[in-house]
Amino acid sequence: MKILVCNDDGIDSVGIYELVNELKKTAEVTVVAPLKEQSAVGHGITMQLPLRVINYYKNGNFFGYAVDGTPADCVKIGIRNIMKESPDLVISGINHGSNTAINIIYSGTVSAAREAAIMDVPAIAISVTNHTAKQFGFAAKVAQMLTQEIANRGLPKGTLLNVNVPDLPEEEISGMLLTKQGKSKWDDIYEQRKDPYGRDYYWLTGNLMEIDIELDTDQAAVKNKYVSVTPIHFDLTDYDTYSRMKEWKLEELLNAKQKK
Amino acid sequence: MKILVCNDDGIDSVGIYELVNELKKTAEVTVVAPLKEQSAVGHGITMQLPLRVINYYKNGNFFGYAVDGTPADCVKIGIRNIMKESPDLVISGINHGSNTAINIIYSGTVSAAREAAIMDVPAIAISVTNHTAKQFGFAAKVAQMLTQEIANRGLPKGTLLNVNVPDLPEEEISGMLLTKQGKSKWDDIYEQRKDPYGRDYYWLTGNLMEIDIELDTDQAAVKNKYVSVTPIHFDLTDYDTYSRMKEWKLEELLNAKQKK
Repeated sequence: MKILVCNDDGIDSVGIYELVNELKKTAEVTVVAPLKEQSAVGHGITMQLPLRVINYYKNGNFFGYAVDGTPADCVKIGIRNIMKESPDLVISGINHGSNTAINIIYSGTVSAAREAAIMDVPAIAISVTNHTAKQFGFAAKVAQMLTQEIANRGLPKGTLLNVNVPDLPEEEISGMLLTKQGKSKWDDIYEQRKDPYGRDYYWLTGNLMEIDIELDTDQAAVKNKYVSVTPIHFDLTDYDTYSRMKEWKLEELLNAKQKK
Repeated sequence: MKILVCNDDGIDSVGIYELVNELKKTAEVTVVAPLKEQSAVGHGITMQLPLRVINYYKNGNFFGYAVDGTPADCVKIGIRNIMKESPDLVISGINHGSNTAINIIYSGTVSAAREAAIMDVPAIAISVTNHTAKQFGFAAKVAQMLTQEIANRGLPKGTLLNVNVPDLPEEEISGMLLTKQGKSKWDDIYEQRKDPYGRDYYWLTGNLMEIDIELDTDQAAVKNKYVSVTPIHFDLTDYDTYSRMKEWKLEELLNAKQKK
């Protein structure tokens, strides 16, 4: 099995290193990851500037390719130019910090996996629910387990799995659950400060308003010590509103105004 | 009506200027837009660096606030710190270039409107289907028309309208259609080049593979000279796959492996 590994914390992060070590036991692994941390870059891609690809070594051994771009750039150039053929799977992670509920929207980790799904390659995004997490061994095993499941069962084209693992010792994990994206979101606060020259600047902080209670949501699942597995896709159409908006009769609206 | 206007082409673009001039006829408009072009930045937000807000003048008059961040940053800080209260509507655009099909995923224009939807503010993203478009008057009128519709009918929380207007004289427009996100996507190509020092670099290009034919998709609608209006949301859960994945029995999978 050929696996492309990416992340958004940067190629020198601990999470990607432990993931690669685990996957290498059973698969041929190619690492293409950002040179620098790219958290919260969303699904940005680099079009106005060129990209460079650098050979990256860890402990004296070739580890992978570092790209001076976004996570989505890494997956695109990894598949198109570095691997030159589609891998069987793309795994993005292991991210330091959870990617549940609204965080999915901002996440570079999830966007890398989503780019793979756009390119018709099955993909997993995997995160540990703590920015200061130090143990990635259990999450790496979960990635391995789901890799085997995808190898056996497949995933529909355009779908990726967004996986969140509580930052706990394996024996404290309650189990694994299939979930939906939760509705918890941030109460944003911009701290207003003054720079050494007396000019204002603003720094984003905030509190996550945890409104998810049901265990079938990613946010509540990890809160209750479960590994959360959410299938997500890139069709953003709001079909409920689409059906209801037929009443708006848009096709008549423009004609009516033009006649005025 | 209080309207916050944002874009991704930058506060000095023609599209945002023409939009603001049209909206000012009937509404109180606040402009908060990126200082520099932010195309294809996706839904990135700035957390590792502070933001600065600059008063921006056009033709000697105060035009709005320029932020050295992403489109989503502009909406967040615009609502939280600059307006200090939620506007009745956020409009992002007028974008130079279409935001149909897969382009929605990468779009800074759409992400700005989506950030508004996350903040429970109704929103419109509006684009003209040509990067070199010079006429924005008709698109500005469409934005005005849909603003009135939303004022009268409302939009469900968490939904935004993604609007694409063909780059044509008004009399050549076929009409307006309610659409879904199309499935057309890019065949990416990275051009490999050498810099003046003999080192390789890569530049993203590609061709849009237009596979949408039905007029109820955004891509086919604009191709056939219709204004396209697509309701989109930020729940990325793939509910079809969610239902089918119940067979995977994830809750048993982890237990079975742990017992081994």
